[in-house]
Amino acid sequence: MIYLDNSATTRPCAEAVEAIRRLLCEMWGNPSSLHAMGFAAERELAAARQAVAAALSAAPEEIVFTSGGTESDNIAILGAAYARRKRGRHIVTTQIEHPAVLQTMAALEQDGFEVTYLVPDGWGHISPDAIRAAVRPDTILVSLMAVNNEVGTRLPLDAARAAIAEAGAPALLHVDAVQAFGKIPLAPGRMGIDLLTVSGHKIHGPKGVGALFVKKGTHLAPHVFGGGQERGLRPGTEGMPLIAGFAAAVRALPDLTQEEARLRAVNERLRRNLSALPGVTIHSPEDALPYILSFSACPVRAETMLHFLSEKGICVSSGSACAKGKASHVLTAMGLPRDQIDSSLRVSFSRENTEQDADALAEAVAEGLRTLAARRLKPRRG
Amino acid sequence: MIYLDNSATTRPCAEAVEAIRRLLCEMWGNPSSLHAMGFAAERELAAARQAVAAALSAAPEEIVFTSGGTESDNIAILGAAYARRKRGRHIVTTQIEHPAVLQTMAALEQDGFEVTYLVPDGWGHISPDAIRAAVRPDTILVSLMAVNNEVGTRLPLDAARAAIAEAGAPALLHVDAVQAFGKIPLAPGRMGIDLLTVSGHKIHGPKGVGALFVKKGTHLAPHVFGGGQERGLRPGTEGMPLIAGFAAAVRALPDLTQEEARLRAVNERLRRNLSALPGVTIHSPEDALPYILSFSACPVRAETMLHFLSEKGICVSSGSACAKGKASHVLTAMGLPRDQIDSSLRVSFSRENTEQDADALAEAVAEGLRTLAARRLKPRRG
Repeated sequence: MIYLDNSATTRPCAEAVEAIRRLLCEMWGNPSSLHAMGFAAERELAAARQAVAAALSAAPEEIVFTSGGTESDNIAILGAAYARRKRGRHIVTTQIEHPAVLQTMAALEQDGFEVTYLVPDGWGHISPDAIRAAVRPDTILVSLMAVNNEVGTRLPLDAARAAIAEAGAPALLHVDAVQAFGKIPLAPGRMGIDLLTVSGHKIHGPKGVGALFVKKGTHLAPHVFGGGQERGLRPGTEGMPLIAGFAAAVRALPDLTQEEARLRAVNERLRRNLSALPGVTIHSPEDALPYILSFSACPVRAETMLHFLSEKGICVSSGSACAKGKASHVLTAMGLPRDQIDSSLRVSFSRENTEQDADALAEAVAEGLRTLAARRLKPRRG
Repeated sequence: MIYLDNSATTRPCAEAVEAIRRLLCEMWGNPSSLHAMGFAAERELAAARQAVAAALSAAPEEIVFTSGGTESDNIAILGAAYARRKRGRHIVTTQIEHPAVLQTMAALEQDGFEVTYLVPDGWGHISPDAIRAAVRPDTILVSLMAVNNEVGTRLPLDAARAAIAEAGAPALLHVDAVQAFGKIPLAPGRMGIDLLTVSGHKIHGPKGVGALFVKKGTHLAPHVFGGGQERGLRPGTEGMPLIAGFAAAVRALPDLTQEEARLRAVNERLRRNLSALPGVTIHSPEDALPYILSFSACPVRAETMLHFLSEKGICVSSGSACAKGKASHVLTAMGLPRDQIDSSLRVSFSRENTEQDADALAEAVAEGLRTLAARRLKPRRG
């Protein structure tokens, strides 16, 4: 199997699997318990928090463990909005955020908040000027993803921080860094980021765990209520096996700069090979993170090509896994023609992928275009 | 080690560990992905849902997977309250619920809801008459736990259902069954229960996963927003390893009636042995679920005794793990004197415990009472 859908989820690494096993079979106490088993679990929790904090150049007390990126986004966005609603009701985000952000924003709009959605250009770029123009003195939250999950564009986080300062806005800056964490160095404290979402299963950790960086001193209105764990922001018995697995995956991350350079070569090779095929249009800009390459292979519909590739043991995605077949809101916002959107595929790499994987995909797409496009033009018999 | 703190958390069973390993190492796709890896994960999700549904005599589409009991309680209570706020603003619960319920109720009170907290008697019983008296025509939610987590009393769920019918109230009935699931047979559909919370790590499954039974046709206002997974009630990539581990633990549950009978004998033996010790008062009533025995060993403070027992390799709890050292709100509501509360311990059994474990505990408590109480009376030197 050639797995090229790593922005949907990744294969858990051996280190994560072993940490989970150990927490299940040996250190399975409840960290809140006041006995030997509990103390041991509490030490595991502290060590995991330290590992995730270190990867973000943050302090351990700035890390809140959650059940994943979606929960982190909800806790950050709802928590910021309701904590600051007396200072303003305006929020800035983009049209190309993940549904965990967009649907949360829609819920806030229902409750009287005003949300400005920045529009990307045809390559998925959000312009720094547009951010500057959008932030107002009553803006209480700016939420931008670090890297778009469908086309790989990087968003101008520095511009967002500057725009907040220029406007004198009481805004917190939230960054959904699910697709950036473990791929580009992130130091939210130094980057002027107040809240930052990361997820375990995009970096060879397990599904079902993530974290939210909450800058020291940042007050969030709690969104979930219970026994007070995770500083009251995410109560409930801590999901220890997954938390330890997440931390192990963080510790096992490679040198990010080297790995990005390696995958840039793989990505560029794939881009060249695909561009040579008739009907193929590349959607990811040249300066996108090389982990993601979005393209369309017209006139074959994405589902048809996905099925064809899957039969050959190649896994890619149409848009994001979370959209599950719906027309991509990201490509739509980028203004792509409908036929390209309907034929769009996303390749997403991990450290496990090689040049050979990329070549196999390009060959399979070429074959798919020959056979499926031809089939599509012929009327079916029987 | 003798582990007698199973209401805090349990040791994951071999079946759960193996299911988690398999999902991490083999079936690690994203169930939303439209390729072979995704389809395989989706089948695992469906099978897990079927297993949990079967244990509750429910339909698979009535099961929503969550990150645990606290999240299930939040989704149920906030979802019911906000879905029905136009029909009334009154809610009935008890003083002896878990913090996941009580703190969520407190948040609703802040937002204009009126909550009636039923008071237990000295044995932790909630009277059916009190429920009947509390439910009003504008009651939109009644939330009772099935079994109390500190003393093991069963709450009168049938009376709650009858009270709602008698009052003609538009109320949903939510049951936090975290301490009951896997111990007593539960069939929420037949019991007139609309919403029922269960957790994985109390039944030898992993920490970090639970479920909410939502009776077919019950509308809840969503509390978390994102990609639409779990019918929009709990979006985010499904925590597959833990979901499969939870389902495996459910499948591995023993015959509940036989196991309850076995532990009743163990519990009664322990109750007799402890009752014979000077200073010991039993708090759990005779008709409590035998999985839990609450008692105080005066004049030794609970933390001192916990430490003493932990040094001997015996793990018990003072109150619940979630309270982490605070005076038990349950024993306080039961009207126990403060010295008993400060000396209270909770023993909680699982299918792994034997008569020998109970005897070892009783002997250790006897020794603790002799040595620690004596030490307490002597002034410390140096």
